[in-house]
Amino acid sequence: MELVQRARQGDRRALARLITLVENEAPEAVEALQELYLFTGKAQVIGITGPPGSGKSTLTDKLVKELRKEKKKVAVIAVDPTSPFTGGAILGDRIRMSDLNLDEDVYIRSMGTRGSLGGLSAATSAATKVLDACDFDYVFIETVGVGQSEVDIVKAADTTIVVMVPGLGDDIQAIKAGILEIGDFFVVNKADRDGANRVALELRMMLDLNEQKLVWQPPVLMSVANQNQGIAEIVAGIKDHFTYLKESGELAIKRRERLEKELLEIVSKKIYRQIADKVQREGKLKQYLDSLMKKETDPYTLVKVILQDVIKT
Amino acid sequence: MELVQRARQGDRRALARLITLVENEAPEAVEALQELYLFTGKAQVIGITGPPGSGKSTLTDKLVKELRKEKKKVAVIAVDPTSPFTGGAILGDRIRMSDLNLDEDVYIRSMGTRGSLGGLSAATSAATKVLDACDFDYVFIETVGVGQSEVDIVKAADTTIVVMVPGLGDDIQAIKAGILEIGDFFVVNKADRDGANRVALELRMMLDLNEQKLVWQPPVLMSVANQNQGIAEIVAGIKDHFTYLKESGELAIKRRERLEKELLEIVSKKIYRQIADKVQREGKLKQYLDSLMKKETDPYTLVKVILQDVIKT
Repeated sequence: MELVQRARQGDRRALARLITLVENEAPEAVEALQELYLFTGKAQVIGITGPPGSGKSTLTDKLVKELRKEKKKVAVIAVDPTSPFTGGAILGDRIRMSDLNLDEDVYIRSMGTRGSLGGLSAATSAATKVLDACDFDYVFIETVGVGQSEVDIVKAADTTIVVMVPGLGDDIQAIKAGILEIGDFFVVNKADRDGANRVALELRMMLDLNEQKLVWQPPVLMSVANQNQGIAEIVAGIKDHFTYLKESGELAIKRRERLEKELLEIVSKKIYRQIADKVQREGKLKQYLDSLMKKETDPYTLVKVILQDVIKT
Repeated sequence: MELVQRARQGDRRALARLITLVENEAPEAVEALQELYLFTGKAQVIGITGPPGSGKSTLTDKLVKELRKEKKKVAVIAVDPTSPFTGGAILGDRIRMSDLNLDEDVYIRSMGTRGSLGGLSAATSAATKVLDACDFDYVFIETVGVGQSEVDIVKAADTTIVVMVPGLGDDIQAIKAGILEIGDFFVVNKADRDGANRVALELRMMLDLNEQKLVWQPPVLMSVANQNQGIAEIVAGIKDHFTYLKESGELAIKRRERLEKELLEIVSKKIYRQIADKVQREGKLKQYLDSLMKKETDPYTLVKVILQDVIKT
């Protein structure tokens, strides 16, 4: 596919179009992803999550710049499952990153809510694959919003950084156990503020209490991102974690699990469409819905009928 | 099924167990839902959504009490896709409603995040069906959090109320077009605050600008829920909307569309499970994943193979 070739040769417009293609699940997307798959697996995918106001964007910005000193190719996917009520914080955040946009070896992409959240997570995952296959060394997935959905999104990363900040009310107490479990390491950002040491200490204690005995002990690092403090240490931590993942065999396990989930998800999506088409095409759907509306049958009984019609035994 | 009978006879503990059953997609849930389906379709399902701090819980509380004056059976499903970072606002809200809990003809149920958001929306929908079949006249689905997911949840309602409030910063400007489209009516709550009239006026103007020409013109109402002001008018509006839906035929259309989506979702979920079991059982999954990890094939090519194996052509 010409678009794939051009994107892999560094054509940024082709890259952007390719990501749009896979995001929208265009018909050509399958062909593109088939071709790209062979080139995937080299990039380290890093998820960055944390409460609003913790400075995730600034931190990501600085991490990208630090990695650029080593001439690495870096991509950022900024995910914004924008609330329809509060909306639009992302734009301001991303504008701050605009100087990075001038760098040929940095690629920044925003992703907003489209339809379902399942869709957003799938779109992020597909874009990650495109970037990986186009030889980006690091792909950051940064979530701008806050919620379970973002946690699900960053779960797809090899390395997950949870960013905390002092002075957010209940601080650590407000954080649920789930967060501790997804973090491969923790960054207390805005560490020049009062209470930063306490946040780090409490995090450390909660991590120690965590019953899961892990081989990898998640470090707790401090940063003042807007003053570039602590950035080099975080980059070192990111690299350490990737080395650990590779040497321990955990990377292969994680990726295999992700492939399994992905494979079955593609299967189920395809099946849904095939069945929807089939019942529609054969005019059966109307008939089914008529009898449901008249309460002549119920959805569960009907499902059995449809399955017998569709599935090989 | 005995549990269904008891729940339909007004046994509250049976009702609670039944909802838990369908929420968790227990094996017996299908049998229960099959039986219940015939009794569904009478309740008016009302979604209540809006930004945090708009007083949705208090408003719902008062609406329930107003409907109780007419001896209606009323249920409230309080949905809280709790953020893992902020968590737990719902408890305080629900405690305020505790006097309603003493009323035999009021049923209140909280639903938290469980696994995926798709799961939460499915659980809400299933619980709504149980309550409808158990002769509740009104089922309120109130979302405590804020986000696209909640909007998706309330979309399953017959009537959607969007609650606004003066003094939330950018007010109306911050609200996206999507919200205007889902609201069957709008309530400006805390209308004793400065700026309430302006919020109502702006809403009205934005609704008029809305290009979709609707038969139903969404009213904008004012309330001070904690002083019981405007509640009777909202209840009247809820009833008007249901009458409109029935007389225009829109209710039947909406419900038919919902049934279609639901039917196909149940089918694809069932097939997904069958396929996952099948490939696992036959030891093919391991083989598939091995060849994926070795890049001998790609997920999309593999999906075709799996489908050919399972689906009738």
